[in-house]
Amino acid sequence: MGWNKVAIVGVGMLKFGEHFDKSYEAMIGETYLAVLGGVQKGIDPKDIEAGWIGTCIGSLMGSELISGSMLSGIVGLAGIPVTRIENGCPTGSDTFRNACMGVASGLYDVAIALGVEKMREKTSDEGLLAIGSAGHPVLMRGGTAPAQFAPQATRHMHEYGTTKEQMAMIGVKNHYNGTLCPYSHYQYEITVEDVFKSPMVCWPFNILDCCPQTDGGAAIIICRADLADRYTDKPIYVAGLGMGTDYQFAAEKESFTEFVASQRAAKQAYKMAGIGPEDIDVAEVHDCFSITEILDYEDLGFCEKGQGGKFIEDGSSRIGGKVAVNPSGGLMAKGHPLGCTGLAQLTELVWQLRGDVIPTQNEKRQVEIKKGYALQHNVGGKGVANSVVTIVTNRKD
Amino acid sequence: MGWNKVAIVGVGMLKFGEHFDKSYEAMIGETYLAVLGGVQKGIDPKDIEAGWIGTCIGSLMGSELISGSMLSGIVGLAGIPVTRIENGCPTGSDTFRNACMGVASGLYDVAIALGVEKMREKTSDEGLLAIGSAGHPVLMRGGTAPAQFAPQATRHMHEYGTTKEQMAMIGVKNHYNGTLCPYSHYQYEITVEDVFKSPMVCWPFNILDCCPQTDGGAAIIICRADLADRYTDKPIYVAGLGMGTDYQFAAEKESFTEFVASQRAAKQAYKMAGIGPEDIDVAEVHDCFSITEILDYEDLGFCEKGQGGKFIEDGSSRIGGKVAVNPSGGLMAKGHPLGCTGLAQLTELVWQLRGDVIPTQNEKRQVEIKKGYALQHNVGGKGVANSVVTIVTNRKD
Repeated sequence: MGWNKVAIVGVGMLKFGEHFDKSYEAMIGETYLAVLGGVQKGIDPKDIEAGWIGTCIGSLMGSELISGSMLSGIVGLAGIPVTRIENGCPTGSDTFRNACMGVASGLYDVAIALGVEKMREKTSDEGLLAIGSAGHPVLMRGGTAPAQFAPQATRHMHEYGTTKEQMAMIGVKNHYNGTLCPYSHYQYEITVEDVFKSPMVCWPFNILDCCPQTDGGAAIIICRADLADRYTDKPIYVAGLGMGTDYQFAAEKESFTEFVASQRAAKQAYKMAGIGPEDIDVAEVHDCFSITEILDYEDLGFCEKGQGGKFIEDGSSRIGGKVAVNPSGGLMAKGHPLGCTGLAQLTELVWQLRGDVIPTQNEKRQVEIKKGYALQHNVGGKGVANSVVTIVTNRKD
Repeated sequence: MGWNKVAIVGVGMLKFGEHFDKSYEAMIGETYLAVLGGVQKGIDPKDIEAGWIGTCIGSLMGSELISGSMLSGIVGLAGIPVTRIENGCPTGSDTFRNACMGVASGLYDVAIALGVEKMREKTSDEGLLAIGSAGHPVLMRGGTAPAQFAPQATRHMHEYGTTKEQMAMIGVKNHYNGTLCPYSHYQYEITVEDVFKSPMVCWPFNILDCCPQTDGGAAIIICRADLADRYTDKPIYVAGLGMGTDYQFAAEKESFTEFVASQRAAKQAYKMAGIGPEDIDVAEVHDCFSITEILDYEDLGFCEKGQGGKFIEDGSSRIGGKVAVNPSGGLMAKGHPLGCTGLAQLTELVWQLRGDVIPTQNEKRQVEIKKGYALQHNVGGKGVANSVVTIVTNRKD
């Protein structure tokens, strides 16, 4: 039915949060150990023939050259080829996508995709001051992330009657989910009132409409689908890989109530998987701001255009709803360390599809798997013009 | 014989040099037009289904987020997936490698790999000052590129009797080749005496032992090998793709007279192509410093270990020698804009293999093609621990 050339045989991640006590190198090492431990039947590291590492902030904020050898050298795999991907918010998911192409190309039988990010290593002041001294071309003019997403919120409110209450409900749902997930950065519930009372960042976003700055690491081991049995009894197959782009600058965009990059990525992934949005049991989507998840519902086809606000309000996206969205807590509660966000989303989906959540974690978190498909989504990068959508399945057909 | 799943159907590059008059965006656009113009039978841009962009300096020096949509948005391909690769000195060649895997995976029939870099946009002072203010963890401690490569030179001199004269001959050869190549940054000949008289950078490197800082852009269009006839009568096939890594830190390295990352990359590429070093007619290799090209001769198997100095001295690597190395002028004369260096090296090799140099450029530049194989090589990244080797051929078998 789908593509199914590549199987996920192991996933692993660090608890997201503040890791001031760990070096970047240590986080790579711990993430690597986590994914090795996540391979059910075990794996000899020598089986891993190639790697892809996703990481942004070292170069972006620290002006530090980070190349692929960072991964292989630290974990004792020095020698294997390692590509470094840096592609804005979808860095982690694009890292996975390129690793999948590497295996599907026939060049490598087994590969690792690993992402790691220390977003908290510099205080916001230090980071911004350093950038200011170098004359940052965008941030110096106010083009911060909240200011880039806010026009989507105000226009969606204007055209479709989406309310600030509905936006707040995204945070309420995702923070609740985060309390169930042991890997989530934040572990407390919030109310709509809490969101309204929290400091205003950029109208209409209060700070609880925004995801935090989080350190994290996540990794996935993949192999040729026909070799999956060596490593696990529960392989998860890659059914669809989509990526879309859009124009970067506001003046070039046709609409402020959608992300066409997401729509393009979703279209490719659904087509490749041979399924539609109605086949998705569980999704991990990009909720960097509350409005983003509402647009995602529409862009990914979970509801009609303009109905995203209603979709959160009527409970369609909660665990147990029509499609469980962000059962991990999402970017908003679990966190968003760019280089590994997509890989951590896929880790959650693999756990959900395998039914692994119940034995090892909080059983309230386990989504009922009916159709057997899960969807991962990121949108971001310069001008919110890059999106990746990945569809994975526990179905071999 | 080789892999031959992917064909190069178009190459194009900008003249390397100082492009203060052109924006980064303009250079992407001009490089794109150059590669479209480089497709013999023409190509409808709508045929291009996916892209990979290689670029480093924007994030590294400018703290600017650059994502894949930078490429697609500017050239009117907004919509197609674009991955951004940043992987130190082999960024351009790894961009090509990932594009090849994308096509070989069956996901895309036609793809573009484009690299662009504005190395000269900031003066050295501005760049270093900006980095200094952010507290660069490596450069602040003197770990600049010349200081990383110098121990290889002194140890090679000590163990194998390699001389400073032999190193200087690398620059003499490559600057001469550069005078023949219309795309080369530098267009003047130098002598061994010129090298010795030029300012000392870091013993044993005078400044003419070092490659310059250069702006540039280069791009390649590839497709499934069986579709190549649509676009050209002279397809060049990708025969081997190798990439190797090593430990990053000096204290971890086993030897200072070789780059094991290069050896590993070469081994993979030769194996995949089913050939050996003796089958290479022409090579574009990494000569960031004079000693690097001498080590390359040995690491790539063009001569025995320790004989690299003799290999340059006896003329084996000149145009007309045993294997023509860096007929374009190499990094030392043509230039080294990280994101596109590998793509520009491959562009030169495609011209050489097709015999295109004679009709359009200086006929003295044309290497005699006997076996039909050409080799591209980069080594670098953090700790000189990443290497890519690509083998291309005009042979269909």
